Amino acid sequence: MKKGEATRRRIVAQAADLLNTQGYRSTPVSEIMRVTGLRKGGIYRHFKSRTTLTLEAFEYAVARMRDRFLRAAEGPTTATERLLAFLGVFREASQDEALHGGCPIINLAVESDDADPKLRAAARKAMTQFVGVFEQTIARGIRQGEFPEGDAGARARVIVATLEGGLLLGNLYKDRAPIDAVLEHLGRYVRNGFQ
Amino acid sequence: MKKGEATRRRIVAQAADLLNTQGYRSTPVSEIMRVTGLRKGGIYRHFKSRTTLTLEAFEYAVARMRDRFLRAAEGPTTATERLLAFLGVFREASQDEALHGGCPIINLAVESDDADPKLRAAARKAMTQFVGVFEQTIARGIRQGEFPEGDAGARARVIVATLEGGLLLGNLYKDRAPIDAVLEHLGRYVRNGFQ
Repeated sequence: MKKGEATRRRIVAQAADLLNTQGYRSTPVSEIMRVTGLRKGGIYRHFKSRTTLTLEAFEYAVARMRDRFLRAAEGPTTATERLLAFLGVFREASQDEALHGGCPIINLAVESDDADPKLRAAARKAMTQFVGVFEQTIARGIRQGEFPEGDAGARARVIVATLEGGLLLGNLYKDRAPIDAVLEHLGRYVRNGFQ
Repeated sequence: MKKGEATRRRIVAQAADLLNTQGYRSTPVSEIMRVTGLRKGGIYRHFKSRTTLTLEAFEYAVARMRDRFLRAAEGPTTATERLLAFLGVFREASQDEALHGGCPIINLAVESDDADPKLRAAARKAMTQFVGVFEQTIARGIRQGEFPEGDAGARARVIVATLEGGLLLGNLYKDRAPIDAVLEHLGRYVRNGFQ
């Protein structure tokens, strides 16, 4: 790896942590300069624009989260077990650097929302993939007779909405009570076949 | 009402809509100047700082949301009915100006989070009151034998987390499917006595 490429990757990784805690849009470039130890020119030599850097930092944060889910999916065989393993990813959310500062997808979604179409498109795409991970597992459980018939998409949206809300509340209070409450609730929801 | 006071209130109301859609922290003052039609000096004559204006706009948005809940609480008598009426507030969220741009509490929570202690304190206080509205009704339902014994706080956190997540997803996609899915789920959760 060339030195330029190494620097570029380091900036992305450091910006990922910074932007997910301090804000994807509202963090000033001066803060990115501070955590990377680079001048403005040193940063923009590697990125066409602030938006390019924001998007790459976001993709980095999402890929790190995706890794957690791929790892969680390795062991379990039944759809129920796999869903419970996915929920387990959030159990130690406050200690996990992948979720430090909250879920990157929802953070970008809130910040970009009505203000920045490029960032919103990236948030939508990542969220659709995230909901899809749950939806596919639920659909498989229905096909294999493990879960009752029903709308796999709606069930997945309920799970993701509840998880995201729990993460947000936990992050707001720096307290694990909200995430514990939603995980207990969702565990029962899955084990009861979404009844 | 004096002219100065009328102008001040108008700035707060216009900033409330703007900041809840474009970002409490990331919206530039130039945008506030644009929607109010005032120069910077004309705005700051009424507010000590940008943070003061942000906080007042936030309080305005929260008060408007609180009105919806007070109105929903007027008719119903049982705890179950009251909780279902609270959920109903979110049914037309996308058409309701009080929730246009999403829930102000969660929007401020995400943006302020690790970056601005004053704004975070305001978001926490508002969220605690919001969860409290559900918790008190659930606790009353338990006392009166309408709901099974259990942790009213945890149940309230599950409801609020799920609602907030549903609003966020709906707002991200500009689609009512997520909020419909969580409202159907939470309606069943309440009617089943949180089992």
